[in-house]
Amino acid sequence: MRFTSEITSDGVTERHFTLNDAPGILWTPGGRDAGNRPLVLVGHGGGQHKQAPGVLARARHLVTVRGFAAAAIDLPAHGDRPVPGQLSEHLASIREQGAAGEPVGPLFPAYNAAVATLAIPEWRAVLAALLGTGEFGPAGYWGLSMAGAVGVALVAAEPLIAAAVLGLARADRLTGAAAAITVPVRFLLQWDDELVSRESGLTLFDSFGTRDKTLNVSTGGHLEVPRSEVEDSGQFLARHLGEAPAA
Amino acid sequence: MRFTSEITSDGVTERHFTLNDAPGILWTPGGRDAGNRPLVLVGHGGGQHKQAPGVLARARHLVTVRGFAAAAIDLPAHGDRPVPGQLSEHLASIREQGAAGEPVGPLFPAYNAAVATLAIPEWRAVLAALLGTGEFGPAGYWGLSMAGAVGVALVAAEPLIAAAVLGLARADRLTGAAAAITVPVRFLLQWDDELVSRESGLTLFDSFGTRDKTLNVSTGGHLEVPRSEVEDSGQFLARHLGEAPAA
Repeated sequence: MRFTSEITSDGVTERHFTLNDAPGILWTPGGRDAGNRPLVLVGHGGGQHKQAPGVLARARHLVTVRGFAAAAIDLPAHGDRPVPGQLSEHLASIREQGAAGEPVGPLFPAYNAAVATLAIPEWRAVLAALLGTGEFGPAGYWGLSMAGAVGVALVAAEPLIAAAVLGLARADRLTGAAAAITVPVRFLLQWDDELVSRESGLTLFDSFGTRDKTLNVSTGGHLEVPRSEVEDSGQFLARHLGEAPAA
Repeated sequence: MRFTSEITSDGVTERHFTLNDAPGILWTPGGRDAGNRPLVLVGHGGGQHKQAPGVLARARHLVTVRGFAAAAIDLPAHGDRPVPGQLSEHLASIREQGAAGEPVGPLFPAYNAAVATLAIPEWRAVLAALLGTGEFGPAGYWGLSMAGAVGVALVAAEPLIAAAVLGLARADRLTGAAAAITVPVRFLLQWDDELVSRESGLTLFDSFGTRDKTLNVSTGGHLEVPRSEVEDSGQFLARHLGEAPAA
C-alpha cells in the first residue's frame, strides 16, 4: 500500500493510496491517534467511484459523527480504471438493453458477480494492509446496489469483517453467499426500487444466515435512500464495532 | 385530569393521573421546565398495562436520552380496569381458541378494533389535557401489537399526532385507517412473528398513505423486538418532533 497524498480539512484527514491496481482513499478524524479505531470499507455503486457523493457522505458521517476510519477504492471498470475483458461483454449488454428501452435490472446480477470476482481480492488486500498497521479495527463494510451485491460475496468470504450494511441488491446469484454470512447485517431496501423487486429483495434478506439481521425499508426509488438511513446505519455499525477512542 | 402522586428518581419524574376512567402516568425529565417539550404517547400491548416492562423501557429512553415527555394509560380491560361488555365476548373467544390449541392471531383484529373504539376518545382526551398545559408538544405516538393496531386508528383520527412508531399488527381491518395517515411513520415487524404473518404486515406497511414511512424488520418472534429498535425509534421521533429544550 503506497500513500500518495494527504490533506486535512474540516476535521477529516484524507489520504490517497494505491494497492496493486486499485486506487483508494482512507479517511480518518483529523489529528489521528494510534490504535483500535473501527474501520469501515465503503463500496461504491455501479458506474460510480470512490469519491461519488454517496460514498463521501457515508465516509464523512462515519469519521465526523462516529470517529471511525473509512476506506474506499475504485473497483475495476470504475473511476479511472480500464474495463477488464471479463466485464466488457456484460457492460455492452447493459448498454444495448438500456438503449432499447428494455429493463436492465435482470442483467445486473451476472455483471455484479463478475465485478465481485475481481473486487474481492482487492478489498481483502486493502483490509489486510490497513489492519496490518495496527491502527484500525474491528472492521465493517457498507455498500448498496452493486456494492451491496459485491458486499454479500465479500462478507461471506472475509472473516475479518465483523458487521455489514448491505442493500438494494437482488437475490439472484447471492442467496448462497448470503446464507454463509454469520455477522450482524443491516439490509436496506427501497420500496419502489425500479431495479430490485420487493420480492427479490425480501428473498435476499431472508437468505442471510445470521440471526442478527435487520431490514430497513424506505419509500422511493433505487437512488432515493433517505439521509436518515445513513445516520441509522452509522449507529448500527457503532453498536457492533464499538466506539472510537477519544481524539 | 387529576394528578394523584409525583415521585422523582434516577432523573425521571413520574406523575400518576386519572382522566375520566383512565389511570395514567406522565414521565418527564427530573427538574422539569416550561414549554415545548415533545410528548410521546406510549401504548401497551394486549394483556399488558401502563407499567409493563416494554412501556417503561420506551418511556425511560424517551425521557433520559431524548429529554422528551412520555405518557401511558391503562386501556379498558387492562391493568386494574374492568372488562367492558363490548370486549368480554372477544376475550372469551381468544381464551377458548388458545386453550384448544388453535391459532389466536386471526381473532386479534376484531378485538383490537373493539379496544380502539373505546381507547381513542381516552387517548385524545389525555393528549388534549396535556397539550392544554402549554408545557408539551409536538406530540408523537409509539405502540406495537395491540397498541400498534389501536395506534393506526388513533393516528388516522387525531391530527395533533405528528409522527408515529407503529408495528406488529396485521393488515385486517386497518388498511383504510392506514391509508388516511399522512404523518411520518416508522413501522416495525418481526420476521418470525407467530401472530402477524410477513404478508399481512407488509400489506399494512404498504397501505400507509404517508410517503414518509420506513419499515424496520428484525428477526425473532412477536415478543423479541430488539432493544436497538427502541434506540432507533427514539431517533426517528427526535427527527420529526424536534429536540427537547435544554434542562
